[in-house]
Amino acid sequence: MDSSKKVVLVRGKVIGGNQPLICTPLVGSDVDQIMAELEKIRRKEPDIIEWRADFFSDLDDSQKVIETASKIRELVGQIPILFTIRSQKEGGQPIALEEKDKIRLISDVCKSNQVDLIDYEMDNEPENIHVLRQVSREYGVSLILSYHNFYSTPDDSSLVEKLLQAESYGADIAKIAVMPTSQEDVLVLLKATQEAQKRLKIPMVTMSMGRLGAITRMFGWVFGSNITFAIGEKSSAPGQIPIEDLRSVIQTIQKSIGNV
Amino acid sequence: MDSSKKVVLVRGKVIGGNQPLICTPLVGSDVDQIMAELEKIRRKEPDIIEWRADFFSDLDDSQKVIETASKIRELVGQIPILFTIRSQKEGGQPIALEEKDKIRLISDVCKSNQVDLIDYEMDNEPENIHVLRQVSREYGVSLILSYHNFYSTPDDSSLVEKLLQAESYGADIAKIAVMPTSQEDVLVLLKATQEAQKRLKIPMVTMSMGRLGAITRMFGWVFGSNITFAIGEKSSAPGQIPIEDLRSVIQTIQKSIGNV
Repeated sequence: MDSSKKVVLVRGKVIGGNQPLICTPLVGSDVDQIMAELEKIRRKEPDIIEWRADFFSDLDDSQKVIETASKIRELVGQIPILFTIRSQKEGGQPIALEEKDKIRLISDVCKSNQVDLIDYEMDNEPENIHVLRQVSREYGVSLILSYHNFYSTPDDSSLVEKLLQAESYGADIAKIAVMPTSQEDVLVLLKATQEAQKRLKIPMVTMSMGRLGAITRMFGWVFGSNITFAIGEKSSAPGQIPIEDLRSVIQTIQKSIGNV
Repeated sequence: MDSSKKVVLVRGKVIGGNQPLICTPLVGSDVDQIMAELEKIRRKEPDIIEWRADFFSDLDDSQKVIETASKIRELVGQIPILFTIRSQKEGGQPIALEEKDKIRLISDVCKSNQVDLIDYEMDNEPENIHVLRQVSREYGVSLILSYHNFYSTPDDSSLVEKLLQAESYGADIAKIAVMPTSQEDVLVLLKATQEAQKRLKIPMVTMSMGRLGAITRMFGWVFGSNITFAIGEKSSAPGQIPIEDLRSVIQTIQKSIGNV
């Protein structure tokens, strides 16, 4: 690991160290569903839990969102919580909020002190990104700026540019998730990851989605991806694999490359 | 899988199908050591067993070599046997035989009907390759033509050329094993594999060696490598991992890409 790299420390977890962290999504549409999901997920001890709030039916009720975040916090204890409202055009669920309401809600969630990280797409208005960067910094919440492409895999230099763009916007962590249409695309994503590792100062999360890209969830960390998403109870994106399987593969790789 | 591809069928095992085969080496220096190794290895049910005869101390005694091959055959039953005298300059042990004696020995082994495949380096004299191609074909033994580089990883087009060269010499299977000096080299090997998969008509075996390259032994098959070498009892090359671990990773990948 390059000593000039920043790491992100969240509730004792190091994002950006030699050990990839496993994040599992929560995709329930109401509190009961979320609690039931969480009950099963937390026993599997993920490193991070992502609440994909775009699945939550009461997203327009800011009070309910914060109450739910607080209930999640109670149940997960010290597991870091990542709060994400994935936009529909980057693979999320349709929601009733306009962008300005969404920014207000994410800001309120930051202020509530219930979550540790938020995710926002870097293709949004720079002004909105700026607002979220300010409020998240003020309340000690880490910011992931992300780029998702569910249709194709841009070339490796475009992908590296996306990661550098996230960094230039002040992200704590940069994320790209792209869809391969060939095995070649899977290697393009890995190549971009490996190149970005040399240029980026912040931790990153990269993956090639779908069945073709599933292997990048298992060994993308070898090339520099710091978080990998796995199924705890339910999948939130194509190509995710069960946390138990992922953990076992990571351990085998660590043994074989002597990184244990 | 491209329908114009040839597959190699050996004792019911398909080399070149969707399922990667696992080969474990035998590296004992005498019959007793080999039998003890084999006793443990065969319980792990490798798909292929490679007798690395360059480790065998009586290699200059053709009769003893064939007797040993016959004992190995008795013990392994229907597991295909690959007979290899790896040359010292491509990572093998020093041996007493001159090239012409080696050719004679490998020919005798083919004629003995005890082994199913032989491996010979494609950088040897074309005349020697031709002799072994003739005798192996005559006796129904499959020929692997191989290239090993323990110092570096040539660029991807050179690697593809090596594989195509093996094919042009009449190999049944082409093999390259190269040493990475960076993570980039690991991607070069995978890229070459993925390119060769589109151009080669015969099955291939590719790997990036050492700790850096170990991951290619686990998922190189996704990009087109048909055999992967694992430790049954003892390692024969840097970066090999235990067969149990390798099998478990392959199964996880197969589940995740839907190839089961």
